[in-house]
Amino acid sequence: MDDDRTADLGFARIDLEREARTGDPEVVYGAGKTAEQVAAILTTLHERHPDRAVFATRLSSEAMDAAAAVGAEIHPVARAATLGPLPARRGRVGIISAGTSDSPVAAEAALTVAVHGAEPVVINDVGVAGLHRLLAVRDLLESLDVLIVVAGMEGALPSVVGGLVGAPVIAVPTSVGYGASFGGLAALLGMLNSCAPGVTVVNIDNGYGAGVAAARICRVEAQ
Amino acid sequence: MDDDRTADLGFARIDLEREARTGDPEVVYGAGKTAEQVAAILTTLHERHPDRAVFATRLSSEAMDAAAAVGAEIHPVARAATLGPLPARRGRVGIISAGTSDSPVAAEAALTVAVHGAEPVVINDVGVAGLHRLLAVRDLLESLDVLIVVAGMEGALPSVVGGLVGAPVIAVPTSVGYGASFGGLAALLGMLNSCAPGVTVVNIDNGYGAGVAAARICRVEAQ
Amino acid sequence: MDDDRTADLGFARIDLEREARTGDPEVVYGAGKTAEQVAAILTTLHERHPDRAVFATRLSSEAMDAAAAVGAEIHPVARAATLGPLPARRGRVGIISAGTSDSPVAAEAALTVAVHGAEPVVINDVGVAGLHRLLAVRDLLESLDVLIVVAGMEGALPSVVGGLVGAPVIAVPTSVGYGASFGGLAALLGMLNSCAPGVTVVNIDNGYGAGVAAARICRVEAQ
Amino acid sequence: MDDDRTADLGFARIDLEREARTGDPEVVYGAGKTAEQVAAILTTLHERHPDRAVFATRLSSEAMDAAAAVGAEIHPVARAATLGPLPARRGRVGIISAGTSDSPVAAEAALTVAVHGAEPVVINDVGVAGLHRLLAVRDLLESLDVLIVVAGMEGALPSVVGGLVGAPVIAVPTSVGYGASFGGLAALLGMLNSCAPGVTVVNIDNGYGAGVAAARICRVEAQ
Amino acid sequence: MDDDRTADLGFARIDLEREARTGDPEVVYGAGKTAEQVAAILTTLHERHPDRAVFATRLSSEAMDAAAAVGAEIHPVARAATLGPLPARRGRVGIISAGTSDSPVAAEAALTVAVHGAEPVVINDVGVAGLHRLLAVRDLLESLDVLIVVAGMEGALPSVVGGLVGAPVIAVPTSVGYGASFGGLAALLGMLNSCAPGVTVVNIDNGYGAGVAAARICRVEAQ
Amino acid sequence: MDDDRTADLGFARIDLEREARTGDPEVVYGAGKTAEQVAAILTTLHERHPDRAVFATRLSSEAMDAAAAVGAEIHPVARAATLGPLPARRGRVGIISAGTSDSPVAAEAALTVAVHGAEPVVINDVGVAGLHRLLAVRDLLESLDVLIVVAGMEGALPSVVGGLVGAPVIAVPTSVGYGASFGGLAALLGMLNSCAPGVTVVNIDNGYGAGVAAARICRVEAQ
Amino acid sequence: MDDDRTADLGFARIDLEREARTGDPEVVYGAGKTAEQVAAILTTLHERHPDRAVFATRLSSEAMDAAAAVGAEIHPVARAATLGPLPARRGRVGIISAGTSDSPVAAEAALTVAVHGAEPVVINDVGVAGLHRLLAVRDLLESLDVLIVVAGMEGALPSVVGGLVGAPVIAVPTSVGYGASFGGLAALLGMLNSCAPGVTVVNIDNGYGAGVAAARICRVEAQ
Amino acid sequence: MDDDRTADLGFARIDLEREARTGDPEVVYGAGKTAEQVAAILTTLHERHPDRAVFATRLSSEAMDAAAAVGAEIHPVARAATLGPLPARRGRVGIISAGTSDSPVAAEAALTVAVHGAEPVVINDVGVAGLHRLLAVRDLLESLDVLIVVAGMEGALPSVVGGLVGAPVIAVPTSVGYGASFGGLAALLGMLNSCAPGVTVVNIDNGYGAGVAAARICRVEAQ
Repeated sequence: MDDDRTADLGFARIDLEREARTGDPEVVYGAGKTAEQVAAILTTLHERHPDRAVFATRLSSEAMDAAAAVGAEIHPVARAATLGPLPARRGRVGIISAGTSDSPVAAEAALTVAVHGAEPVVINDVGVAGLHRLLAVRDLLESLDVLIVVAGMEGALPSVVGGLVGAPVIAVPTSVGYGASFGGLAALLGMLNSCAPGVTVVNIDNGYGAGVAAARICRVEAQ
Repeated sequence: MDDDRTADLGFARIDLEREARTGDPEVVYGAGKTAEQVAAILTTLHERHPDRAVFATRLSSEAMDAAAAVGAEIHPVARAATLGPLPARRGRVGIISAGTSDSPVAAEAALTVAVHGAEPVVINDVGVAGLHRLLAVRDLLESLDVLIVVAGMEGALPSVVGGLVGAPVIAVPTSVGYGASFGGLAALLGMLNSCAPGVTVVNIDNGYGAGVAAARICRVEAQ
Repeated sequence: MDDDRTADLGFARIDLEREARTGDPEVVYGAGKTAEQVAAILTTLHERHPDRAVFATRLSSEAMDAAAAVGAEIHPVARAATLGPLPARRGRVGIISAGTSDSPVAAEAALTVAVHGAEPVVINDVGVAGLHRLLAVRDLLESLDVLIVVAGMEGALPSVVGGLVGAPVIAVPTSVGYGASFGGLAALLGMLNSCAPGVTVVNIDNGYGAGVAAARICRVEAQ
Repeated sequence: MDDDRTADLGFARIDLEREARTGDPEVVYGAGKTAEQVAAILTTLHERHPDRAVFATRLSSEAMDAAAAVGAEIHPVARAATLGPLPARRGRVGIISAGTSDSPVAAEAALTVAVHGAEPVVINDVGVAGLHRLLAVRDLLESLDVLIVVAGMEGALPSVVGGLVGAPVIAVPTSVGYGASFGGLAALLGMLNSCAPGVTVVNIDNGYGAGVAAARICRVEAQ
Repeated sequence: MDDDRTADLGFARIDLEREARTGDPEVVYGAGKTAEQVAAILTTLHERHPDRAVFATRLSSEAMDAAAAVGAEIHPVARAATLGPLPARRGRVGIISAGTSDSPVAAEAALTVAVHGAEPVVINDVGVAGLHRLLAVRDLLESLDVLIVVAGMEGALPSVVGGLVGAPVIAVPTSVGYGASFGGLAALLGMLNSCAPGVTVVNIDNGYGAGVAAARICRVEAQ
Repeated sequence: MDDDRTADLGFARIDLEREARTGDPEVVYGAGKTAEQVAAILTTLHERHPDRAVFATRLSSEAMDAAAAVGAEIHPVARAATLGPLPARRGRVGIISAGTSDSPVAAEAALTVAVHGAEPVVINDVGVAGLHRLLAVRDLLESLDVLIVVAGMEGALPSVVGGLVGAPVIAVPTSVGYGASFGGLAALLGMLNSCAPGVTVVNIDNGYGAGVAAARICRVEAQ
Repeated sequence: MDDDRTADLGFARIDLEREARTGDPEVVYGAGKTAEQVAAILTTLHERHPDRAVFATRLSSEAMDAAAAVGAEIHPVARAATLGPLPARRGRVGIISAGTSDSPVAAEAALTVAVHGAEPVVINDVGVAGLHRLLAVRDLLESLDVLIVVAGMEGALPSVVGGLVGAPVIAVPTSVGYGASFGGLAALLGMLNSCAPGVTVVNIDNGYGAGVAAARICRVEAQ
Repeated sequence: MDDDRTADLGFARIDLEREARTGDPEVVYGAGKTAEQVAAILTTLHERHPDRAVFATRLSSEAMDAAAAVGAEIHPVARAATLGPLPARRGRVGIISAGTSDSPVAAEAALTVAVHGAEPVVINDVGVAGLHRLLAVRDLLESLDVLIVVAGMEGALPSVVGGLVGAPVIAVPTSVGYGASFGGLAALLGMLNSCAPGVTVVNIDNGYGAGVAAARICRVEAQ
């Protein structure tokens, strides 16, 4: 069953048609895959999509080494790899994080934005306990096309950002916190119940998903 | 404290500046408010935003009557009211629901899209247990700018839709179901864990939030 | 077992010694008690504490009627009753609520503050989606001794308030919301995980508990 | 108490009568047992059931070594061991997995099917984000007697499969995922709420239970 | 979009092709539908499947009246309706319930079995606190092709039944119980963790799903 | 504050009066204490209670070594230590476990029974999937004064035992299981919802608590 | 199947042998049964156990009327009925409740104790916020054979009682409370985690189960 | 963006204005930060606040070493570091813990109190299972301005303390416990539902938050 639509590696059945359907090639979700599997899938994807970077996320150290060995560029903070040239950019996506500990998730989101064809603009450590830090960058916020807001603990930042601007806001809860944060559940629930209209949410620590959504929003050409 | 930025009704402090900040006036969340409060806030908002429909959601029967009495148009399936002319439309937003029981949430989403300046296109009852119904409208799906996917029970529809198209997909879990659906929790978790990239999620039964997000996405003009 | 320390009404064993131990008489928790029980306990407490208002909360309409019939003053928004003169006031306690729907909880908190000997200052509907409403009252906030912050949905307001002032902040989550608010759980978890230092939390909808704590803080005379 | 019905090893009371009652010998659940215990129980079961493979699951590396030392065949992906000849086969059971990371659970299910007397047919990596992969094997699906569908994350695959065929579908949620998958809970709830009629579900990662159920279904000879 | 595959009633898009794909026509899930909608869908389904009973479940009293008015037979304990002749029967399915309070769920399962072409055999009130009641019907149990076991509270009955026989066992947790049964969650978790091999589980109170699965198992003709 | 009622070790305030109040000396809960702390508290307790064994539970390997070094007897399966002579025995307590993996909890319960002055009678591996194993020891069960029933997974054994005998039954859920056992939650909920009357329950894996309760029941001399 | 061991009423299969096995006849759990069913089962049980009261719990008002019509005595606070003479009493059981709102559960426990042959001693409203109330009855507590402790909210009372006496303590969490009490879950978890040794727990609001356990403990004659 | 209000270290945006707004400098939350980041932020904070100790919590061993290397004082039980002189003290704060295992959280609370300008008074191991230990220090309790009560397991201690004194009580649940303590959830829920009026609560293991709140309460000078 290896054809133009699918590449069958035995352990994986790669969806070659995905770019045609959705505009983006399949991405390798590295968790639960061996380093060899990650490298093999990346290589296969690169062969079928030579003109555009293919992408692997949630990589172990071994998988990052294996990816490097087949020519991929490694992004250690995001624990990700890219193979091939980044696409041209359309749109500017803000990635706004509440605290320093949220950086890995913000990095994954920023890299995903770039891989999917938009420009990431990172704004770190502007949590709501010191509002002046956020208000100081308000003009920058208003210049961006889409905003990804990354926060752990109580996850209040998307509500505040969503009240300041009219751009689409994608909230990413992180597992930063302890005790009653329950691995990011508190932030997730907070964001789902945001009193700011129009905030949408992705899974805990899912910088990748937020990045894809943001980049796709930048492609919309509504009339 | 009644000024250009805020209208103080005693029981409410209306945010008059919201349209300037975000592009849309404040919306009345009807739950937990009396019929009189709903009517008074709608009237005040209409006075300050006479050229564009103002909006109230989650209305009791009493609140719908009170809104009608001050001149609002009532939308009974969506349990909502609008007062003033709808804005011009930019972009087409698909509202795709899995089953007949999801209709009220889909109706709230569709009305919200219209109130916020985009064109809603409703496609009902195309759940994944009969895939041919969805595949039959695939061309229509591909013509739309943003997709809102509404589903209860296991909430699988956004994953399938998200694998078919590249438009931004906003998933709305509904409380349709029983037993281990836990009031929509099963659908919510399913959507948050979607294997289709780029799906974002709003609160259970939050057609309103999905509609705002979709309409704002239609306004993006990324370069 | 009816003595100076306890009044035994058969169905209740009233703690007469509580004022001596803690500074405040026992309060009647009306939920799960009959109207007759509420009236009888209020009357007994009033006899033993004639110089200071005694207090009953969470009253049914029947219990409010029965309390009025024995001479109590009824507070319908707070669903509470007082019998006897309010004490002299020490300290000013802000009760800050995020939305109009949070008013009953805020009213219970404000009344409790007064019953326990401090002055309540109510500031309604200053949720984080319109920050300017909160920033407009910043001077007032800074003049208060303790702040009670009442919010449902995502419960973000205490974090923002806690970042603005140094007064003790007591957060009260409310059950306002739907879907993934899970009856106030989202707001509760958000407040427990607040990134603003020094925020303490009470049970969902527990305006009473927040009011007692705030009034007692006003009595502290630390050296 | 060591007789024809029970073998008492001190640490275990083996149910020798189970095959007579249910058609299948007792199986060793390896978790929480020492390597020595696993080997001893396997050996005892083999002595009592010499003509048919006995089976141990969820083995540690040490337990796999100890089982090999007593003559068992080791199945490393499934983390299981068999001792004795596999039974004759009746019926063909499809084991369909959504992603590469679900392979260990699918392998346990496939081996269990074989140990319990049916033929496993494995179809990997046909998740719903690329439907054409599943539709490409539709004829194969329709030729099978029972289908085991293995999926993590949102667990949507059983609903789609259940809408395509009339064979009994047994859904196995896996713990593949992160964040709001809560260790497989999202997939479990999704499968329990499947909108496709007739889907039944086993515990998270319980490939063994699904395999037993499928093989037993193949033995049914309803008139 | 009304054709051989789909009947579009506006509020519903009926899947006419389902019988061809899965062997059974679409069934009307009555919850969340109006009485008129239920009657209209039943009528349409009956027109397209005149030779075989069509089926509606979870009906309100109003929906039962409306179904009766279009000629359906009403089954009040199961809160369901059938329209058209029941199919010929293949296989015998035991429906075994733990207590009298589980009867409505057992009745829905039994009717579903009959509607889907197998013979239901109902055995009520044989819970594990009086084992002799179950052991007294052991011969009957062994004569049946599939067993549906219905239980609330701790849901222990499927484990005991599953240890006695080799037929496929489908466990149905019910919401019977209080306190820490959490609406059937205790029974659901108990059944998912059954120590008896091969037990599969459906949603809480889902007698319908168990019935479909059992009837389909009776159609299997494995070689 | 070191007197006849309390021994103050700085890091611990030992309750010397507990035996006088409750009949049993304080017991050392080893989790979260250093090996030195465990040894010091055991020694102090032994000095104050020289005629009766004192007891420490949930010991790390280091704490077991430290306890041995001060003369305690070590019980490795139960991960506990005793220091001093066991008391005379009154009453016979059955400790009945469902599976081999439940042995450590059963061992803690049995040792606790002995330390608190009753005779433990251990019956292992009689889970409900092979009922004849339990029925074979029915006479023994009926001869015992109290029964402790230890089970993981679905925790069905106490219900079956509770239906067979009239002795007090104390159920101990264990964390044995995986997936939807949620660390013993499934067994705990099952036991709390037991349909057998009179079953009481302790915390997950709390063999100690069950043992204390059982031994105290043996001391009751009701008239 | 109507014989000496079972009475088959069609809708119920009464366990006539239960008294022989466990010392107590079967009890009617009224929830989910019709008034007619309750009356019929009570009557049947009374015919078979004419010398000893039979018992029905959790009765609706209709079921209480129907029970009265067949000669039963009604206990309205406990929502229960008895038919036939109470047995002779052995042992004294304290039923200690934390607050007035816990009275119905305490009443069910007390009545159950009497029906099962022990003497109930009720001590109401001695919650831990006024410890002197409990300490005032300490001598009485020490004279009792078994203690049932009933509490809602945080459920702290069993820990305090368990630290004062050596009698067996059975804790009954109640659903009294609001918000984060989650229907009694807070009290249940508190009691399961009690730091007082030997406390056992029953389901939320399960006064019946506690009463049975306590009465059975009073029958123990350990040597 | 490095100015008087913010120090931008690249990975962190330090809020220099926080002391002016709230009375206390920003504190370093060490979890999720590298040792180098902790040391750099501490150094920067110290430069800007040379006259008053700055503070870092939740430090790894590496971070404690790095902090020591830049001149900080290390507090190993609290896993914290301070740099600079402690402020003058106003008010006395009791830190009362239930058991020895709660000591690290109590130590964090006590240090935080001192860093924020009040005097900590530590009272360890006075859990409710031995009430006399608490009653023995009652005079001391009454002399303190604020009480922090630290407890794991069922978390009952704050309710008992709150019933004895009128000072503000801040409850800190700890993760001490196992099984159904669910990582401190049982203690958290218990404290939120305390029947003692005026108890407020912080996150599980959040000694820091309780300490800040207590010190700020000591600064209140209500008139």
